[in-house]
Amino acid sequence: MGARPYSFTASQAVNRRDSEMVDRAVIEQMVRKSLQERFTGNSPVIIRPLSHNGGPNPLVVNVSARHVHVSQQDLEILFGPGSQLTKFKDLYQDGEFASEQVVNLIGPRNRLIPGIRILGPTRNYSQVELSYTDGVYMGIDLPLRTSGDHDGTPGCVLVGPHGALNMDRGVIRAERHVHMHQSDCDHYGVHDGDYMQLKIDGPCGVVFDRVLVRQHPKVKLEVHIDTDEGNACHLPSASRIELLK
Amino acid sequence: MGARPYSFTASQAVNRRDSEMVDRAVIEQMVRKSLQERFTGNSPVIIRPLSHNGGPNPLVVNVSARHVHVSQQDLEILFGPGSQLTKFKDLYQDGEFASEQVVNLIGPRNRLIPGIRILGPTRNYSQVELSYTDGVYMGIDLPLRTSGDHDGTPGCVLVGPHGALNMDRGVIRAERHVHMHQSDCDHYGVHDGDYMQLKIDGPCGVVFDRVLVRQHPKVKLEVHIDTDEGNACHLPSASRIELLK
Repeated sequence: MGARPYSFTASQAVNRRDSEMVDRAVIEQMVRKSLQERFTGNSPVIIRPLSHNGGPNPLVVNVSARHVHVSQQDLEILFGPGSQLTKFKDLYQDGEFASEQVVNLIGPRNRLIPGIRILGPTRNYSQVELSYTDGVYMGIDLPLRTSGDHDGTPGCVLVGPHGALNMDRGVIRAERHVHMHQSDCDHYGVHDGDYMQLKIDGPCGVVFDRVLVRQHPKVKLEVHIDTDEGNACHLPSASRIELLK
Repeated sequence: MGARPYSFTASQAVNRRDSEMVDRAVIEQMVRKSLQERFTGNSPVIIRPLSHNGGPNPLVVNVSARHVHVSQQDLEILFGPGSQLTKFKDLYQDGEFASEQVVNLIGPRNRLIPGIRILGPTRNYSQVELSYTDGVYMGIDLPLRTSGDHDGTPGCVLVGPHGALNMDRGVIRAERHVHMHQSDCDHYGVHDGDYMQLKIDGPCGVVFDRVLVRQHPKVKLEVHIDTDEGNACHLPSASRIELLK
């Protein structure tokens, strides 16, 4: 998400004052190409260590792009009997990884988002995590939930290379949260299930309220926000990050 | 952005356990259709009166989707000599409107976003306002600016039905701001150019820092945030909105 130089070659830019009419076929080809690219090659998670916090562990804020978790049973429906998730790249938490496997998501308005990455390892449930931006597009009224809390959540259809999976529930907008080891809870004086605030200073400064504490003995201190949140505060230009009780 | 019922017809959903292989051509057709739809028909601004504030005027927060402003000269390059913007719908500020005219945006990575709406009336400069989500996709490192401040900003190419326009600058991410009448400034005790905070209570509560005050004798009190910000706080589920000095 860093700066990319802006450059343009003459062949890409046509000005009506200086040249002939734009070739429609060229534009149409560009539209198709760009639309196809729009939904592929998304990095699932952007890792950005931002500050030390005086505590036992560094504070890291990660932006989670839309992604999917699957059970082994559902993985085999999508990718075939005996399929296994294979590693694309490691995530910040030990043992967690973005897999090479991606699926297509079809929602109630018959719209589709292709190429959503599965995060591994497999779980004992399948779950789709989208942003509200995705929800508006797909026509899914996303419930705000923590992972695995699927009562009354909407479903969708996932399509893989072997077959399609009817999910009758499990599509959520993940509640912003912070993974904490017990030593982190002790440092901040909080408990599993508490809510904290995440303060992002910078030109697009934001204080995120209601950051859920999720304590687990095997995790590293890490805040998860989604792409809407990461872009609202423009995390790349943040000057200081603070987690507040 | 309200709730939409979730429903699915059997013909749209195929489960590998229950039926034959998914028809690739059908899926491909859906992908094409949905990708085309992705960038069209965007409502340019969502208006949502949210609270009274004890002041002389109601507090309104609007979410601005990506949009374009154009000069009359540039409009004629895009739509032909003598072209005029025609009204699609009124915006909250008197005299401002979303036009029926839309253009395609081409950026440095040769990617394209089609169907960006022009807001009227014409101005004495052309300007493209994108979200950081759009900027990441397009490969444009968006500067955070107030309208009309174009020094050192990147450009792009806009394509209309008559021709293409080389913009050598004017592509920005608009700084979040609040339009205020003098009576609003008096009520809040602020001046043009000051910064305020916008507090959104709700399940995705957020405090937006650095909301720029833009005083003008002819405007109605109105906060403008972009789609990233509107979705980060999930404005539709907000329970209370407050503007703080």
